[in-house]
Amino acid sequence: MKSFIPAEDQARRLLAVALGGEDADLAVVNARMVNVYTGEILDGSQIAVSEKWIAYVGRDASASIGPRTQVLDAGGKIVIPGLIEGHTHLVWLASVSEYLRYLVPGGTTTVISETLEAYPVAGVEGVVDVLASFADQPIKLFGTAPAMVSVSRATAGIADRDLALLVSREDVLGLGESYWQALMQQPDSLLPAYAAVRGQRKTLEGHSAGASEKKLNAYVAAGISSCHEPISAPDVLDRIRLGLHVMIREGSIRRDLAAISKITGTGVDTRRLILSTDGVAPDDLIARGGLDHVLQKAIDCGFDPVAAVQMATLNVAEHFGIDGMTGGIAPGRCADMLVLPDLGTIDPQWVISNGRVVAEGGHMLVAPRVHAYSAQSRTTVHLDAAMDPGRFAIPAPGHPSTASVRVIDMVSDLVTRAAAFDMPVVDGRIPCDPARDILKAAAIDRTRRPGRTFTGLIHGFGLARGALAASSAWDTCDIIVVGTDDTDMALAVNRISDMQGGAVLCDGGRVVQEIPMPVLGVISDLPMETLAGRLADLKAAVRERGCPFPDPLLSLIALTGAAIPFFRICEEGLVDLKTGRTAGCLSDPASVDSG
Amino acid sequence: MKSFIPAEDQARRLLAVALGGEDADLAVVNARMVNVYTGEILDGSQIAVSEKWIAYVGRDASASIGPRTQVLDAGGKIVIPGLIEGHTHLVWLASVSEYLRYLVPGGTTTVISETLEAYPVAGVEGVVDVLASFADQPIKLFGTAPAMVSVSRATAGIADRDLALLVSREDVLGLGESYWQALMQQPDSLLPAYAAVRGQRKTLEGHSAGASEKKLNAYVAAGISSCHEPISAPDVLDRIRLGLHVMIREGSIRRDLAAISKITGTGVDTRRLILSTDGVAPDDLIARGGLDHVLQKAIDCGFDPVAAVQMATLNVAEHFGIDGMTGGIAPGRCADMLVLPDLGTIDPQWVISNGRVVAEGGHMLVAPRVHAYSAQSRTTVHLDAAMDPGRFAIPAPGHPSTASVRVIDMVSDLVTRAAAFDMPVVDGRIPCDPARDILKAAAIDRTRRPGRTFTGLIHGFGLARGALAASSAWDTCDIIVVGTDDTDMALAVNRISDMQGGAVLCDGGRVVQEIPMPVLGVISDLPMETLAGRLADLKAAVRERGCPFPDPLLSLIALTGAAIPFFRICEEGLVDLKTGRTAGCLSDPASVDSG
Repeated sequence: MKSFIPAEDQARRLLAVALGGEDADLAVVNARMVNVYTGEILDGSQIAVSEKWIAYVGRDASASIGPRTQVLDAGGKIVIPGLIEGHTHLVWLASVSEYLRYLVPGGTTTVISETLEAYPVAGVEGVVDVLASFADQPIKLFGTAPAMVSVSRATAGIADRDLALLVSREDVLGLGESYWQALMQQPDSLLPAYAAVRGQRKTLEGHSAGASEKKLNAYVAAGISSCHEPISAPDVLDRIRLGLHVMIREGSIRRDLAAISKITGTGVDTRRLILSTDGVAPDDLIARGGLDHVLQKAIDCGFDPVAAVQMATLNVAEHFGIDGMTGGIAPGRCADMLVLPDLGTIDPQWVISNGRVVAEGGHMLVAPRVHAYSAQSRTTVHLDAAMDPGRFAIPAPGHPSTASVRVIDMVSDLVTRAAAFDMPVVDGRIPCDPARDILKAAAIDRTRRPGRTFTGLIHGFGLARGALAASSAWDTCDIIVVGTDDTDMALAVNRISDMQGGAVLCDGGRVVQEIPMPVLGVISDLPMETLAGRLADLKAAVRERGCPFPDPLLSLIALTGAAIPFFRICEEGLVDLKTGRTAGCLSDPASVDSG
Repeated sequence: MKSFIPAEDQARRLLAVALGGEDADLAVVNARMVNVYTGEILDGSQIAVSEKWIAYVGRDASASIGPRTQVLDAGGKIVIPGLIEGHTHLVWLASVSEYLRYLVPGGTTTVISETLEAYPVAGVEGVVDVLASFADQPIKLFGTAPAMVSVSRATAGIADRDLALLVSREDVLGLGESYWQALMQQPDSLLPAYAAVRGQRKTLEGHSAGASEKKLNAYVAAGISSCHEPISAPDVLDRIRLGLHVMIREGSIRRDLAAISKITGTGVDTRRLILSTDGVAPDDLIARGGLDHVLQKAIDCGFDPVAAVQMATLNVAEHFGIDGMTGGIAPGRCADMLVLPDLGTIDPQWVISNGRVVAEGGHMLVAPRVHAYSAQSRTTVHLDAAMDPGRFAIPAPGHPSTASVRVIDMVSDLVTRAAAFDMPVVDGRIPCDPARDILKAAAIDRTRRPGRTFTGLIHGFGLARGALAASSAWDTCDIIVVGTDDTDMALAVNRISDMQGGAVLCDGGRVVQEIPMPVLGVISDLPMETLAGRLADLKAAVRERGCPFPDPLLSLIALTGAAIPFFRICEEGLVDLKTGRTAGCLSDPASVDSG
């Protein structure tokens, strides 16, 4: 980004500070500096900073230190580069400014975030609004352009002109995760997008969970440059051998670091290993922190501490082609540095970002900018009419008494499969059957074809009564709702519509819990701590009603996800990820509401 | 370059080959493959290729091998990625097609070359013609845009629009070497150029020979991303610690590898070390080879062989941001591979480039394309009139009998300093004095201000009689001539004009040796072997006449070089590199011919 490349006058001053002709704005002295380029730890290092940038790194910065220089004495403690989060989801639950309140004191000074949550509900303008929320913050925030792999044919794909607009921006570093299955099934839409992004010399973020050896080769051959999905050391080895940068994931969706740490026994070069979170939920962020926690755990799991630091700094910067801007403590880079008690303790005493001390002892010294999201981003829940309970009817034409119905079967809290259940047909419709834990699951389009609804059945969700709904359904523009009662389902959906986004639990004809998410229908504007409390209350209330999953809201919104096997739902019907085929409960198009 | 990113139909076929649905064009089996990403050596590797690109790498490519697949059985031998030359000068002495006859069988499959020799004499059109000579060759050839640091004020710098045109090209990977002294002396011209190139996410190639610690910091702070000038292990350590990619130079200008190899004792991370030649002259190329020789010597000098291979492949590709295209054996990369007898013997049995077997057992299997250089590139020697011996007179107005004259003193075959000699004044002019080894040295502008001549004196060149001239004077658009006799000097310059470029030795009023260089006045169109012979004859003839230098032609053309200390000459006068000041022999502007 231009604002991170010195303008001519800034460059002149930077040179003058390096040469000792002008006073640095900031200097760090008496540092045990981790040099991520050489892998050394250099005692007695001194660093001089001019504005956002490092001017001098060496044994003696005294010529650059004057009356107007803020001098930080590291007291012989460890200094490492600021941490770079290479794969996360900031367009999720909390606002950017709330995330920064926790990420910055932990030592994250650069973040590359997915933006796919914005595109289906607010178009390219929504993504641009998200990127605007990333600008002028205490740390560097970048985005990836959405590849928009979706189970919904109406939602899948990004328009060529939208992709061109986004990928040419300096604050967009690549194409966001595009699941391998989609490339195999829809090469027509993805290969041109890949070529457009490669032409800009930017990255193609990958997602190769479960790809067999040959499919993985084909995926990498298409130009994919990273994967954050491996769950074991052999998975990782298979991928770095093919030239991928592999992001080891330790976050709220999955925690794979302990298993993957066995790779340390192989002695392979770690230059293409990266630590990342893939997203941290409010409760985890408050309890554990962000990438700082991942780096701590990597060291605790046996990675060489210096190699682990490289995995959270230089390796990430090199992958995204920003190592001239950050990722190491060297002249010309942004002054992004952490002072740590020791190399085994990732608990920054000071966090320096873009040349400023932004946190000390775990406390922010600067306020993140609170972004005013556009009116369009705050108006993303559109229905053709107030939801009527009758819209959730599942018609079974030509089935007098019983029907064999294809049902979403929860294999785990996230993985699903198709299962067939014999269901009674009552008045030409198929009711749910809470006694057998067979509930209704519906997806309602909230933007593209407002109100278009598909209702199917789900087994194993465990909700004994009421309905749980959310507007943050993955990879689609849907509201997703699961329930035992059409009236509670309709009430929940209508409440979400009233709030212009959020998560709602209804029971017995009333709203039991609700969390407003008025930004894109995905982001709450509550403070992080309040939001965490509300999420905990919602979770407890849903689990009280019989849902066995650790995070019922996550299990709900993942039902529309294109990346998790095997059987998904969207406003168009039930989708078999193995074939990409969309159909109704009875494999009968008539059961899909064209509303 | 687009031609190295698969088009959509090529990408579809690439995926099909990876998946085993289509036959590969080429497959390598039974390979001990060096995986530069992990640092492993993997026995029993198989590689399948579709058109230019690698489709599959793994244990079993049989599904991709069919009747139309050319199968190479590596017989358990070592397979490494094709070598990448990161810093060299192909616009020098021989034509590109002649260089390729030697580089390709040695295993170089990608070259990044300077182009600064073309710009002063043929403008941006000349650089574009050079880039055209790089296209459609058996290997990948890229250029860097000329930064045009020059001792001649008229030649220094590249026009903004020319730089923008060049750096936006896919076959231009960065800004060519810009010497650190120039940044310190002319930040106005270089800082905007640096910003323009960084904005394109391309590299700034550096040249930091002799920079003190603070000056080196300032130079790197300006965005410089590499240096090929270190001559010792401590020099290298100083530079990789600052985040530079360091190119270890082993070529015809200097051989620093043996000294630098001591760095292996430090155990530092070698990820930012690169092997390069900085240019190989015909005799060296024929006798030793190119980058293959450098890699062999690195291993012989004690670098870990796998690390050394990384230094000639992946590390170079990462530096230039082309590691998605080449630099490793992985899907989606160009199929650039070498089959070696063993990891200690860099003598390729087969060289595969862009998916084709281009050399076998040291012999080319494909012919390099002979480029038809433009008429403009072949017409670059312009004088205002035939050179008259009188033009080499050194007037000494106001000096009746003797004058103290500033003379170029040869400290070594390349390094010079300013020295003062008392010289007689005869008829108001200063003659040379071969008895004291004080000769005339003149620089004549051959393009910008045709015929503009400056004549000074040089001590220590050793030529006892005659004159040596060449049109390939470094960093300028000058013809450079050194001689004992104004008539021989004029004859040599006029012969170069007749040939439209070259090197000429005259003695006793006749041409003794000559080598035509009709392309840009720098490149001969002779076959490599013939050219080497002619260069040897010229060298012998000059040394017979008393010149002590190992390569008198190199010593001659370096007299105008902006990068070698300390006292230089150009058509504008004598230039003190410490101050950047230009003046005449008598510090008297009158002694500069404004012709």
